[in-house]
Amino acid sequence: MVEGRRLKPVTNVVSTKKELIEALPLTGSVGLVMTMGALHAGHRQLVDAARKENETVVVSIYVNPLQFAPGEDFDTYPRNLAQDLELLGDVDIVFAPTDEEMYPREPLVRVNPGEVATRFEGKTRPTHFAGVLQVVAKVLNLVRPDRAYFGQKDAQQLALVRTMVADLDMRTNIVAVPIVREESGLALSSRNAYLSTEERNLALALVGSLRAAREAAAAGASPEETEKVLSEALEAAEGVAVDYATIVNPDTFQRVSSNAKQGLGIVAARVGPTRLIDNMEVTFG
Amino acid sequence: MVEGRRLKPVTNVVSTKKELIEALPLTGSVGLVMTMGALHAGHRQLVDAARKENETVVVSIYVNPLQFAPGEDFDTYPRNLAQDLELLGDVDIVFAPTDEEMYPREPLVRVNPGEVATRFEGKTRPTHFAGVLQVVAKVLNLVRPDRAYFGQKDAQQLALVRTMVADLDMRTNIVAVPIVREESGLALSSRNAYLSTEERNLALALVGSLRAAREAAAAGASPEETEKVLSEALEAAEGVAVDYATIVNPDTFQRVSSNAKQGLGIVAARVGPTRLIDNMEVTFG
Repeated sequence: MVEGRRLKPVTNVVSTKKELIEALPLTGSVGLVMTMGALHAGHRQLVDAARKENETVVVSIYVNPLQFAPGEDFDTYPRNLAQDLELLGDVDIVFAPTDEEMYPREPLVRVNPGEVATRFEGKTRPTHFAGVLQVVAKVLNLVRPDRAYFGQKDAQQLALVRTMVADLDMRTNIVAVPIVREESGLALSSRNAYLSTEERNLALALVGSLRAAREAAAAGASPEETEKVLSEALEAAEGVAVDYATIVNPDTFQRVSSNAKQGLGIVAARVGPTRLIDNMEVTFG
Repeated sequence: MVEGRRLKPVTNVVSTKKELIEALPLTGSVGLVMTMGALHAGHRQLVDAARKENETVVVSIYVNPLQFAPGEDFDTYPRNLAQDLELLGDVDIVFAPTDEEMYPREPLVRVNPGEVATRFEGKTRPTHFAGVLQVVAKVLNLVRPDRAYFGQKDAQQLALVRTMVADLDMRTNIVAVPIVREESGLALSSRNAYLSTEERNLALALVGSLRAAREAAAAGASPEETEKVLSEALEAAEGVAVDYATIVNPDTFQRVSSNAKQGLGIVAARVGPTRLIDNMEVTFG
């Protein structure tokens, strides 16, 4: 019997580590995209990048409790596996474990993300990056991908994952995928679903301040002056409670040096009850 | 041309991570033995176990600075690669990196070994296990062995490595290899080289106290009574400064429960300037 041609890609959805490992191919490159579900066009961009560069694409869908603090939105975080699978398109393996599967016990040995994780996003979420790195380490160790794709949107997470991979000698290339924006400029985020129409407009202040900073830098502003443009633009915006607005070195997340050629503008602010982040590269001209 | 039969095993000695990864086979099982050199018959036991169960045997030889505290014997720790290679016998790959290769910078993301690492060996060496787990994570991630062999001699290290592998989902089986003892009963250790003839005799108090505890347990002593036998026997020995002598659960290194069937006797003591450890399983009969 001749097997019919596959008209539609068949995704292998697995929920245990054992099934995951058995589903992995013995040869050929593997690309990994880690998500918490609630997929949008930004995730799709990660999957498309993985699809282009790898023979096998693995997507994990898991809302990692370890990266949420008590009082954060772990319980209300949107979960809809069926809808996520539809949005994913052509991937080979989806790993969607339960909490019991991922953490059969409270982990005793932990990834310590170091000092960078106490600043910016880590200041308001002191246990967040430790939880992120724990689950990223676990899934990288399970899948052993050639490449793992992370969004530039979560720039501090990206920097920390890169640092972990280097410091623990994990054999995976971390690939940064550019931020996807709506036509308005708003960076895509699962949390945009929480925004009212009015709040979506107010939220444009984040990208607006970053663009102002980029233009100032290109026009010759120093890092210090550029940071002033960024933070003043965001502080001036109505309906936006600024958490931080600064220029950092994109690899170390330390304050950018006075003679730097490049920096990363990073902003975080609350719009209504929703906390949003955004970032943009700036080149000092 | 027909290639001649290999009369003597050829060991591939590599010093960089890149060479190591390139030397690894694409198929077949890989066994890893991590050492700090100064090899003795105890290490040979690890290699023999790896040789029996795997197609490729990788041995790392690296004195890991991260697991020594200032004032410990990092600088004087015996290093003799040529002699180590001779003692190793039939292995396929030896990874002997420099400090610069292993740690191109001070690691920022660290393995946090948790509370167990603060007790027993960790009490006198508070940064020791963090350093051990960092380098074990790195080499496990580089080699990705099917099995890694650790000596039962360093029982707390073994328990912590097992905990890390579970909590970070590393796909390696950790195999414990029994303690090798001299005819006198003295557990083999690289640090035995520091002992004078007289100190070697005094050092027998460690194994003596463990044997007394084992016999007491077998004869019906409770865990508490067995611990008393162990610590009193070691305290009574001449020329031995006891650090700890206790019975623990071998997996958790927590105090063994009153109704346990099995426990692990663990002892540490200084004999002259040299600190020695030993351990033995006890079965409560």
